[in-house]
Amino acid sequence: MFLKLTIAYEGTAYAGWQTQKVGLGVQQVIEEALEKIFGIPLRLHSSSRTDTGVHARGMVAHLEVPDERWKMTIRKFPLAVNAMLPEDIRVMAAVRAPDGFHARFAALSKEYRYYVWNHFAMDPLRRQVAWLVPSSLDLAAMKQAAAVCQGTHDFAAFAGRRDYEMKTTVRTLHQFSFTKSGPLITFRLVGDGFLYKMCRGLVGTVIQVGQGKVAAEQMIEIISSRDRTLAGMTAPAHGLVLWRVNYR
Amino acid sequence: MFLKLTIAYEGTAYAGWQTQKVGLGVQQVIEEALEKIFGIPLRLHSSSRTDTGVHARGMVAHLEVPDERWKMTIRKFPLAVNAMLPEDIRVMAAVRAPDGFHARFAALSKEYRYYVWNHFAMDPLRRQVAWLVPSSLDLAAMKQAAAVCQGTHDFAAFAGRRDYEMKTTVRTLHQFSFTKSGPLITFRLVGDGFLYKMCRGLVGTVIQVGQGKVAAEQMIEIISSRDRTLAGMTAPAHGLVLWRVNYR
Repeated sequence: MFLKLTIAYEGTAYAGWQTQKVGLGVQQVIEEALEKIFGIPLRLHSSSRTDTGVHARGMVAHLEVPDERWKMTIRKFPLAVNAMLPEDIRVMAAVRAPDGFHARFAALSKEYRYYVWNHFAMDPLRRQVAWLVPSSLDLAAMKQAAAVCQGTHDFAAFAGRRDYEMKTTVRTLHQFSFTKSGPLITFRLVGDGFLYKMCRGLVGTVIQVGQGKVAAEQMIEIISSRDRTLAGMTAPAHGLVLWRVNYR
Repeated sequence: MFLKLTIAYEGTAYAGWQTQKVGLGVQQVIEEALEKIFGIPLRLHSSSRTDTGVHARGMVAHLEVPDERWKMTIRKFPLAVNAMLPEDIRVMAAVRAPDGFHARFAALSKEYRYYVWNHFAMDPLRRQVAWLVPSSLDLAAMKQAAAVCQGTHDFAAFAGRRDYEMKTTVRTLHQFSFTKSGPLITFRLVGDGFLYKMCRGLVGTVIQVGQGKVAAEQMIEIISSRDRTLAGMTAPAHGLVLWRVNYR
């Protein structure tokens, strides 16, 4: 039996989705809970890997449970797993998936959100999930810079080193935009896939455009260059949330 | 020189605004920071007292700084205080107030928000600032119950014991309503003043209406009774945020 899980977590305490040499991954914590429930080790396969400190509202992962081990209703299942999990990780939904379903290969697109708090003082209620940027920002220039990134491009300039093994660094960014409500800037990034640190590189560079450190017109040159050293800063992990993964 | 401060805090770690027999209050933490800056003890006077675990986005407090101690610009002042504060407390704004200004007596109205997460599993990113209510809720009945509470009433039935020393338990509730977006229910309570635990009593009772434990029609009887034992449960502190205090 194949199960598709929607998982939320606060990434503050974790080394990202995968366990690293130093630090525990969210995946391992959930796999340990699953082993307690089913009595055998089961592997979770995720749509995405989030980096250390990145959060998720809608991570998707699948697992295959041998039929003879499955002894509860699908409705009870997330309650049983959550009872075994620390409160910074929760299974928000569980549905039966078709045999052979793969959370990563079946994903059509992904949405990330990135939160910036643009005020001299951080909101204490958002401090785990937003990047404090106290400087004044040229929002019009930022809008222009974000808009030119939309579409299909080779995003090598915004890729982390880990992507050297990728066949291609071409991705389609369906949407890269933001709204501002009071001091809170919410970036929305929707794409068919994202390179390692791509979201944070894009947001960090757009913020530098807002600060006047990078010209909006340079954005297209940076992308064309495919040169990581030309892109702006990588925004910190704790402002980023894997918001949603879309399937057919 | 009178200063009016807007203060935000995550209440999780504190015994409320005021220091209690057991537990540190937010007020004391800020007063200690002020003493470090000005070299003398200074008293903060707040618009409101929040209870243990309650949060604030827009608490207002004033203080009087002797002119000879005031040696910085008003713009630098919140930065200086914030540098002395733990990251769960922040001065979000500071302005000069007229001599004799009093944060409590000058307040015209106050707005609280209460967050309920209505899903079987808590969102890990909201777990410090929302009450998990997994049961299904009759929103229409809740809307009706909340609406009848609006207006000027004697809210003794929703008062905590601490209010026995109050001259009157009559308050005007300008607004008591909620919106639902996905699993998140946001209650908005605006009034000329609130009794101790009044917000939490109103929200807790309306949730019980939603659960079918209290009839919407009973709401007006509960208010009329002035009897605390007739009102529903007190919603937990960690869903409540002092959102804004309004002045002329």
